[in-house]
Amino acid sequence: MNNQTLILIQCQDAVGLVASVAHIIAKHHLNIVTMREFVDEENHKFFVRVVCSGVPAATALLQQDLEENLPARAQVSINPAREKKLVILVTKEHHCLADILVRHFFKTLNASIKAVVGNYDTLQEFTEKFDIPYHCVSHENKSKEEFEQELADTIMPYQPDYIVLAKFMRILSPAFVAKFENKLINIHHSFLPAFIGANPYRQAYKRGVKIIGATAHYVTNDLDEGPIIVQRTKSINHSYDVPNLVTAGKEIEKAVLSHAIHLLTEDRVMLQGNKTIVFE
Amino acid sequence: MNNQTLILIQCQDAVGLVASVAHIIAKHHLNIVTMREFVDEENHKFFVRVVCSGVPAATALLQQDLEENLPARAQVSINPAREKKLVILVTKEHHCLADILVRHFFKTLNASIKAVVGNYDTLQEFTEKFDIPYHCVSHENKSKEEFEQELADTIMPYQPDYIVLAKFMRILSPAFVAKFENKLINIHHSFLPAFIGANPYRQAYKRGVKIIGATAHYVTNDLDEGPIIVQRTKSINHSYDVPNLVTAGKEIEKAVLSHAIHLLTEDRVMLQGNKTIVFE
Amino acid sequence: MNNQTLILIQCQDAVGLVASVAHIIAKHHLNIVTMREFVDEENHKFFVRVVCSGVPAATALLQQDLEENLPARAQVSINPAREKKLVILVTKEHHCLADILVRHFFKTLNASIKAVVGNYDTLQEFTEKFDIPYHCVSHENKSKEEFEQELADTIMPYQPDYIVLAKFMRILSPAFVAKFENKLINIHHSFLPAFIGANPYRQAYKRGVKIIGATAHYVTNDLDEGPIIVQRTKSINHSYDVPNLVTAGKEIEKAVLSHAIHLLTEDRVMLQGNKTIVFE
Amino acid sequence: MNNQTLILIQCQDAVGLVASVAHIIAKHHLNIVTMREFVDEENHKFFVRVVCSGVPAATALLQQDLEENLPARAQVSINPAREKKLVILVTKEHHCLADILVRHFFKTLNASIKAVVGNYDTLQEFTEKFDIPYHCVSHENKSKEEFEQELADTIMPYQPDYIVLAKFMRILSPAFVAKFENKLINIHHSFLPAFIGANPYRQAYKRGVKIIGATAHYVTNDLDEGPIIVQRTKSINHSYDVPNLVTAGKEIEKAVLSHAIHLLTEDRVMLQGNKTIVFE
Repeated sequence: MNNQTLILIQCQDAVGLVASVAHIIAKHHLNIVTMREFVDEENHKFFVRVVCSGVPAATALLQQDLEENLPARAQVSINPAREKKLVILVTKEHHCLADILVRHFFKTLNASIKAVVGNYDTLQEFTEKFDIPYHCVSHENKSKEEFEQELADTIMPYQPDYIVLAKFMRILSPAFVAKFENKLINIHHSFLPAFIGANPYRQAYKRGVKIIGATAHYVTNDLDEGPIIVQRTKSINHSYDVPNLVTAGKEIEKAVLSHAIHLLTEDRVMLQGNKTIVFE
Repeated sequence: MNNQTLILIQCQDAVGLVASVAHIIAKHHLNIVTMREFVDEENHKFFVRVVCSGVPAATALLQQDLEENLPARAQVSINPAREKKLVILVTKEHHCLADILVRHFFKTLNASIKAVVGNYDTLQEFTEKFDIPYHCVSHENKSKEEFEQELADTIMPYQPDYIVLAKFMRILSPAFVAKFENKLINIHHSFLPAFIGANPYRQAYKRGVKIIGATAHYVTNDLDEGPIIVQRTKSINHSYDVPNLVTAGKEIEKAVLSHAIHLLTEDRVMLQGNKTIVFE
Repeated sequence: MNNQTLILIQCQDAVGLVASVAHIIAKHHLNIVTMREFVDEENHKFFVRVVCSGVPAATALLQQDLEENLPARAQVSINPAREKKLVILVTKEHHCLADILVRHFFKTLNASIKAVVGNYDTLQEFTEKFDIPYHCVSHENKSKEEFEQELADTIMPYQPDYIVLAKFMRILSPAFVAKFENKLINIHHSFLPAFIGANPYRQAYKRGVKIIGATAHYVTNDLDEGPIIVQRTKSINHSYDVPNLVTAGKEIEKAVLSHAIHLLTEDRVMLQGNKTIVFE
Repeated sequence: MNNQTLILIQCQDAVGLVASVAHIIAKHHLNIVTMREFVDEENHKFFVRVVCSGVPAATALLQQDLEENLPARAQVSINPAREKKLVILVTKEHHCLADILVRHFFKTLNASIKAVVGNYDTLQEFTEKFDIPYHCVSHENKSKEEFEQELADTIMPYQPDYIVLAKFMRILSPAFVAKFENKLINIHHSFLPAFIGANPYRQAYKRGVKIIGATAHYVTNDLDEGPIIVQRTKSINHSYDVPNLVTAGKEIEKAVLSHAIHLLTEDRVMLQGNKTIVFE
């Protein structure tokens, strides 16, 4: 992968964009390996993800060439950090964390886990088996503000690209969310927008649904309303009580979150308003 | 199937119910082929569906024996109508209706379609190809009351076991629903409880979900809140605009509705409050 | 769609192909709406499907420009027939045929069904409901050669783009297949390459599989060995006997075949050796 | 669960078996919580799995009562070992092992892992993080006989209920298989019976399939031909090269194997010839 170049562009739509982009790339002696584009016709936006073989002689020049020849205010990103830095936030449930730590240990995560932060120490022993620092930041006997300040202070030094809420069961304030804009990734244990909020499996049980699901999404100020990255579902039937639903749900949750992390670490997700463009 | 007996029981849970039921069935010289039971522990309810080989010498006696030996107010149904009578309600969309009519024509529906009733005449020509009576009951220039009275008057003479709303796009009043209690089956074009109400695909598009679905359910007074029978989903991505979602959704809708009809016509669905027990 | 241009290219891979293609398209004043490409690295082949807005002033010139500037022997196709002509071959089973005829009737098939040809008359009445000519070409009391000659003579006048074997249960000779190269599409009632040949559901039952499937594929000389277009599967369990498997399988078969037809009629399938590139 | 009784019965089919079983259970003052039965009509066999609340005063007497009142040679098992003992066999791939060890560590496996045995030491460090003994039994410089003898000698002292081949890449001899009859569980990295044998992903790539899968099955003398317990599939497309297929496949493999172990540890799998009855 070291002699490849990844280019991400997001701009106003216009005539001839693919040709412009391809032309500039060729001018810089790069060869397009794969190109995925999308035009959001409602918002007149153009998105493209290009993988090229070869490395530009002058990345800054390529960037400048692209910016000057694309619509004003185009966002051009050339070779964003290859290995993203992650901080994982947890409470007591292990399934998502364990899945991520195992992938990290065997080097299939394509990201570097810098730390795990929990509001309990439940998962400390397990985390430390994998030589990852674990910080216990309890929310007890603290105001929300104090708790979140301590949380931010713990996270900040690691300068993470993404903060993964791997079943972190505290609702974060708008102030905290603003501090880590577009970096907070959550796994919600339902098929959003169904069963927003607490106890989704209890809600699902009461409603008598025949399918449950999980959703990985960016965190925004509105609870469970951020841009969705990945969703999956599983058929169930009347014989599932709440504990059965929770058990079945955990399998989906960990698969969905790990897949979302995979997409993010490969820079396959682009944001447009409250939606995502995902180039799988 | 003619020398088989189907027994459905629903009652308060109690110790020894399976043994009692099996004992009484054996006493009447029937042999159990399959037996599916479920205990709703929250509501202390017992449900069982038994298929026996053989026909009871005296069905009334078997019924009496079961009722006397099961908890008070047990609902016992022996050989409910083998071939259900259906009336189908439609508006303009053909996909669900066509799927049902084709199954009916080739005798794989296990039910008898008595009539199709539409509030437009759009689907009349198609319906009549299959020699099924089509009634056009327009809602135009009528009060809701008048329209529903005419609808009921059209349906009533057919004495249907189920009235299938195969993309019938009018909201029915509580009075109408009460008239056909537990007989109205609807296909809703979303994965309920997500996107209740109008334009679910538009809602799904705006929310940026990565999965769409459909739900077949009993109709109750609360819009899209009745007991769910079948649900299915399909993965989508950012490239689906609203018309694409509608097209993809129709495939799910017709499959879900046909499967729900199949379950109902084989008496595999039992109601408990706002939920269903489905013995697949 | 009338002011769009579809361009399909298949050629040896080379440096700068996307740029070349995009440049030529821009030169002819077309704007790229979507572009999907694929490089088969094993065979050094490049495939691209481009949808442009606008119509070229001179299609022949655009074709020439592309051919001259792409690697030798590039296959360039501009605006292949928008509405494909289909002939459907059947035996006695109705489910795939009915699904296709209904879509055709309601104009959602994006293709024109010219005729249905069956080796029995079982499906004649149904076909004729939709005003499609039905030809009964019996195989009885004929040599394979005679039968296939009559079949070919019946099909040929319609000049179909594709001949869809919608549960046509006769094995076709290499000579017949050669006559309609890359035009014969079959639905096989198993998840190929499992259960090649006759009675796949019986084979699946005996093997005790927990999933069944169906495969839509091009027909080549080797039985059930042609390039695969679409496959789907469904979970089953020990309680399915052979008739249950057949019934469940039919639902998959019709969905898979209809989806394959949809892909073909939108020119989303390209052939490379014994495999397909499918730009969904 | 401690005051529940699990009863598994497998016998020739006969009239009145459910009634007999239910009657005897009631006589011993147990209450049926769930009862799942299956009649294999082809082989005239009856299978039932009953969960009762309560514990029999005399288990031996209950066993005797059942055996005496059921067809000759009925296999009756009352409360088989609640927590199965497992030995895991591995080679170099970690994904299935890790999934199992994590579940074990967090006590969601419902089984006790006694040891991991590998023919390389690749997974030793990881295994030992979880305080599970790891035995490296190399196959190098040994005859197959010697290797398998050493393997058996390593496994035997643990008296496992099941030996799980979690991507163990050596083919076992009939002699070895005979030694552990009905105890060897394998995960095969394809959707059996497609792609039996080596390099299934390479085979799948060459065939151009649109779906891949994995199969958990009992090991018998015929390679990849044993009774199937669980299968799952995943859609893929032309863009997957062999390494992509392997990566995608691993996610299915670990999910399938863990689900099979779950079913086995809850005594939900019964064997009938080369097939399984699975009471999910």
